[in-house]
Amino acid sequence: MKIGLDIMGGDYAPEANVSGAIAAHQLLSPGEHIVLIGDTHQIKPLLSEKGFNPDHFEYVHTEEVIGMGEHPTRAISQKPNSSISVGFNLLKQGKLDSFASAGNSGAMMVGAVFSVKTVPGIIRPCLCTIVPKLAGGMGLMLDVGANADCKPDVLVQFGIVGSLYAENVMHISNPKVGLINIGEEDEKGNMLSLATFPLMKDCSQFNFIGNIEGRDLFNEKADVIVCDGFTGNIMLKLAESFYIMTIKKGLKDEFFDRFNYENYGGSPVLGVNAPVIIGHGISSPTAVKNMILQSRDMITTGLVEKIQAAFK
Amino acid sequence: MKIGLDIMGGDYAPEANVSGAIAAHQLLSPGEHIVLIGDTHQIKPLLSEKGFNPDHFEYVHTEEVIGMGEHPTRAISQKPNSSISVGFNLLKQGKLDSFASAGNSGAMMVGAVFSVKTVPGIIRPCLCTIVPKLAGGMGLMLDVGANADCKPDVLVQFGIVGSLYAENVMHISNPKVGLINIGEEDEKGNMLSLATFPLMKDCSQFNFIGNIEGRDLFNEKADVIVCDGFTGNIMLKLAESFYIMTIKKGLKDEFFDRFNYENYGGSPVLGVNAPVIIGHGISSPTAVKNMILQSRDMITTGLVEKIQAAFK
Repeated sequence: MKIGLDIMGGDYAPEANVSGAIAAHQLLSPGEHIVLIGDTHQIKPLLSEKGFNPDHFEYVHTEEVIGMGEHPTRAISQKPNSSISVGFNLLKQGKLDSFASAGNSGAMMVGAVFSVKTVPGIIRPCLCTIVPKLAGGMGLMLDVGANADCKPDVLVQFGIVGSLYAENVMHISNPKVGLINIGEEDEKGNMLSLATFPLMKDCSQFNFIGNIEGRDLFNEKADVIVCDGFTGNIMLKLAESFYIMTIKKGLKDEFFDRFNYENYGGSPVLGVNAPVIIGHGISSPTAVKNMILQSRDMITTGLVEKIQAAFK
Repeated sequence: MKIGLDIMGGDYAPEANVSGAIAAHQLLSPGEHIVLIGDTHQIKPLLSEKGFNPDHFEYVHTEEVIGMGEHPTRAISQKPNSSISVGFNLLKQGKLDSFASAGNSGAMMVGAVFSVKTVPGIIRPCLCTIVPKLAGGMGLMLDVGANADCKPDVLVQFGIVGSLYAENVMHISNPKVGLINIGEEDEKGNMLSLATFPLMKDCSQFNFIGNIEGRDLFNEKADVIVCDGFTGNIMLKLAESFYIMTIKKGLKDEFFDRFNYENYGGSPVLGVNAPVIIGHGISSPTAVKNMILQSRDMITTGLVEKIQAAFK
């Protein structure tokens, strides 16, 4: 198994990425290899500084980097030797089994769709985020920004792929799928949610529990929270601002601790033909370590194959 | 001045409403009269229990009540003698200068539009909520649920009425108006926000500061936060769930204290031809007291007349 990691992506790259890879290495089984993609002239001294045997990793040397502010499509096409472009190229060729980066999210989405392509039958791949639940455990929210405008059938597909991720990677049995809405009643909603509700109700591919509200993000009502990418992105950023507020105010609490994105790795891209994970721009070594473990779990559970089978 | 209050609406009615009216009475100036609309057989014993001189209030006796779960349009038309229907009828006739209720929100919206009507030129009246700002002071978010689907010109109008409310009732000079979006850059967004952005940029009736994100709800970027009612409702309920979480966890903090909706009264309905306030279903005496003071402020500042003038 080859787990690809972009060493150049993220605000704290390459140091945080290298440290994360070292931490992950200790937790991987034999046969689970990390492939570092980036400027080896920068990586190697960091490894020796940390006294880490460089033979534990594989390397792909790249010299270009896609910056955080670059235009995704332009960057991917104009920087074929960037760590992100090279990573996706290796993923496409089957030389990697997964690819993760904390770099330019847009370029990661574009790279995923351009290289390994969308799973046949999937209308729009999406981006997920893991959310902590008050009573313990985790939930999954999707889409959180890849698709600002969604049609009802796209939301139904988010329910299918989200349910598969929750069941296989998060080990939630028969995950409860809820549709974000402005009321719990069946007839509540905007045009999109009103049109989506009956389609979800009729869908036999997941356990639809009905509409949920903004206040239900952290409770036990749903394990998989489906919404369009506009709504999901705004909810995610609002929730993050609360977490940051509690940190700044020094409010210690077990639940708020679990809010820390570092513990979950990154945001999986679902609906493309390989495991792809997009990390937070500010990914720390812990976040990078967890992105690698999350990549490993997406590979070993055969999530992509299960998604492909669901849309056959 | 006659400030109308529905004594029968809300989960803790009529006790909380009567107590709130008594508390408000102490703070009103001579000439600012509270008119209690509801079952006087229930109101009068409560007043004497509390040792309050009933002559301080005016009364309109009603015998029907619209329940929280009733269908708004049906309830308004089928219960003409309910406190909400009677209140709006008096408002329409000019026998009240404002009307506030913590009862069925849908019936309040429908009643407002049916009775005093939408301000000429306004496409859709909307519902606002007051949000605390981290650095102190308050902001206004609209729409928070009256209009699940909005067109770009409707959002522009929310900017105008929101700005007028912030300036006149909240005393914020030249309020900064932000459009909720998934990125700060001009070209970010879903179809609605992309179409709205240039219209807001060109609008000379408010101080548009551009796109803001989910994380900006509580910071200083914008005083008036404009979004469609679907997004606003979900943000509001998510924010409320955080507030409730901090209460349950016993996390004391000055900012979280200011989250308490009780301090702000209720949600003003903007874009109808009279001041109308919809209270939270769980309105306490403090919340009711503040709804009354908020009603008074909407009357004395001539907010409705200013909105009418802006759309002439």
